[in-house]
Amino acid sequence: MSAGSDQEARERLIDLAAEFYDQFDRGTIPHMEVPTRTKSNIVFDEDADVWVYGDRTSTRSANSVRGAQKLLKAVYTIDFLSDQLEQDRSSTLRELYYLSESWDLNEAQFNDQDESNQLIEDLEIVSEVTREDFHMRPEESGATVMGPLLLREQTRRGEREIHCQEDVGEGGYQIPNNPDTIDFLENDAELVLAVETGGMRDRLVENGFDEEWDTVVVHLKGQPARATRRLTKRLHDELDLPVVVFTDGDPWSYRIYGSVAYGSIKSAHLSEYLATPEAEFVGIRPQDIVDYELPTDPLSDSDVNALESELEDPRFQTEFWEEQIELQLDIEKKSEQQSLAARGLDFVTDTYLPERLDEMDVL
Amino acid sequence: MSAGSDQEARERLIDLAAEFYDQFDRGTIPHMEVPTRTKSNIVFDEDADVWVYGDRTSTRSANSVRGAQKLLKAVYTIDFLSDQLEQDRSSTLRELYYLSESWDLNEAQFNDQDESNQLIEDLEIVSEVTREDFHMRPEESGATVMGPLLLREQTRRGEREIHCQEDVGEGGYQIPNNPDTIDFLENDAELVLAVETGGMRDRLVENGFDEEWDTVVVHLKGQPARATRRLTKRLHDELDLPVVVFTDGDPWSYRIYGSVAYGSIKSAHLSEYLATPEAEFVGIRPQDIVDYELPTDPLSDSDVNALESELEDPRFQTEFWEEQIELQLDIEKKSEQQSLAARGLDFVTDTYLPERLDEMDVL
Repeated sequence: MSAGSDQEARERLIDLAAEFYDQFDRGTIPHMEVPTRTKSNIVFDEDADVWVYGDRTSTRSANSVRGAQKLLKAVYTIDFLSDQLEQDRSSTLRELYYLSESWDLNEAQFNDQDESNQLIEDLEIVSEVTREDFHMRPEESGATVMGPLLLREQTRRGEREIHCQEDVGEGGYQIPNNPDTIDFLENDAELVLAVETGGMRDRLVENGFDEEWDTVVVHLKGQPARATRRLTKRLHDELDLPVVVFTDGDPWSYRIYGSVAYGSIKSAHLSEYLATPEAEFVGIRPQDIVDYELPTDPLSDSDVNALESELEDPRFQTEFWEEQIELQLDIEKKSEQQSLAARGLDFVTDTYLPERLDEMDVL
Repeated sequence: MSAGSDQEARERLIDLAAEFYDQFDRGTIPHMEVPTRTKSNIVFDEDADVWVYGDRTSTRSANSVRGAQKLLKAVYTIDFLSDQLEQDRSSTLRELYYLSESWDLNEAQFNDQDESNQLIEDLEIVSEVTREDFHMRPEESGATVMGPLLLREQTRRGEREIHCQEDVGEGGYQIPNNPDTIDFLENDAELVLAVETGGMRDRLVENGFDEEWDTVVVHLKGQPARATRRLTKRLHDELDLPVVVFTDGDPWSYRIYGSVAYGSIKSAHLSEYLATPEAEFVGIRPQDIVDYELPTDPLSDSDVNALESELEDPRFQTEFWEEQIELQLDIEKKSEQQSLAARGLDFVTDTYLPERLDEMDVL
């Protein structure tokens, strides 16, 4: 599941189609085996330290009209992706769905975008090539980076060398759809701080946290795009930087941390490519709500349900998370990261983050 | 309502507080007059060619406990903003809400963020200073720009000269929260194309539309942030470039065009600062759905309601919009901009946009 070359991605796709051909040739009904993608079929991979799919599989088989149609669509899609790679083009998932209307066989066309999205995920899993290496772009791009880092991005228009403090405006460096086009050239960084909200990202930049603490501030922009998670992982693995995640203090934000650290159920096949298992959670912890007497909102019913479901989620079955989630269910409150402003605009950069990062032995 | 200096913004705020003082002094009950902000109170300003508030006003008066509390909050907020401007700091609307918890008087604290947001809007209207000039940042920043444009951004860390094709990655130049910190230095542009979706923005960049047609591609990212609308207006006014808006073909997207061109009801006081009345709509028009036989989805009930409400909206009472909206209600269908991919990935840049822009006499 490495970046690989376009040629290699193309060959793996064609191998899949060849496999159907061989199955026909052997007189067996063509089929494709994919891991079952449900919470009960994700298991912890001790070597990689991330959650991956377990042994249970589902079979897409041509032994029914519906199944045969699925495989037909797979073959047309493989043909499209193979052409796309050969021509060094790219497209979005939505374009693929619409493009299918131009295919000569009506039966090969997708009924809705869920169907084409799921097929691309199946192909990723079975071929062990990432969507990015198929040149499939997401609808919305990654977020931004600000920090002491010089990088080189390989664009269609040539190479660009960009320093993520000196060569960018206050908005920062915009992460491209496929961050594997980036090489890290030089850095003076000690830490990667991945931040959920734009308001807090701007606060850290205004207060010069990236300069004072040699920190690469990555804006997650809510639930992070794949490009953002991939870049975060590469910053950790290649530059040997600790990654710390800073979000609101509610169950939805803990899932944002979870998707950075452990991957998501939907993309467990990509955990090794996207997840940063060493990423730590700085806050807002329920403990912070108590310790710093933050302004709060009451938990809604759906918050409570989400917290309870996290207690059941293997990704959150650690001492830290069980303690924090139990505490939150007990105090029945949540706080946003910007609620730290109740102590003044500098509290987050002068007090909260230095204290917490020191406690965590990160700084 | 010009950018003005921090000093000027500060003086106008202090003048407001001084007015309350004078009212006390004269023995009148302190009050503040603001235009009524509803659809029935926006009128067309023939000179500026945008929709602005009409003559109806609402009074925030201290003649009730609730009214007096509103004015108290206004005074505390003016004090905070005045300090912020003096110290050259900035903050988000959400931070202001939380910050109020640190104020010494409980009665001055905001009950919820709607209250503090509305107060800032009131202050904008009455002082005729924009939120940006109060140094209030939005939660989420503007979108990105790609095109033949060299600009200089004044950041807190010094000036940055950035060419929006040569000095940026494929993600483009990230618009800062306050685009009035930008000076346009040089450009070879013929057109500004403001694009709703990230998928289409990436398609145009991949196909090199910005290079081939000397176009500044501005990504709107759905309903555009104020920063994006302000930058678009400045590109039009200062560089004398035509602005063309390219969205999905549904009533929600027509509102995106509306907010670029005519301003919004919520911010009609800012129309002169944010709106580009000369902006034209390229599509997706309902007529395009018919002419190009695009893949469609049926209109939902809420789509139909939104179209009918647009027919009542003074901003859409033009021949063009009445014809198009009637046609859409007739065909009962909508199309996304990426549905053009049904004709191939190059159709939008080789055929659709050149044809439409030629018809519109823009290219």
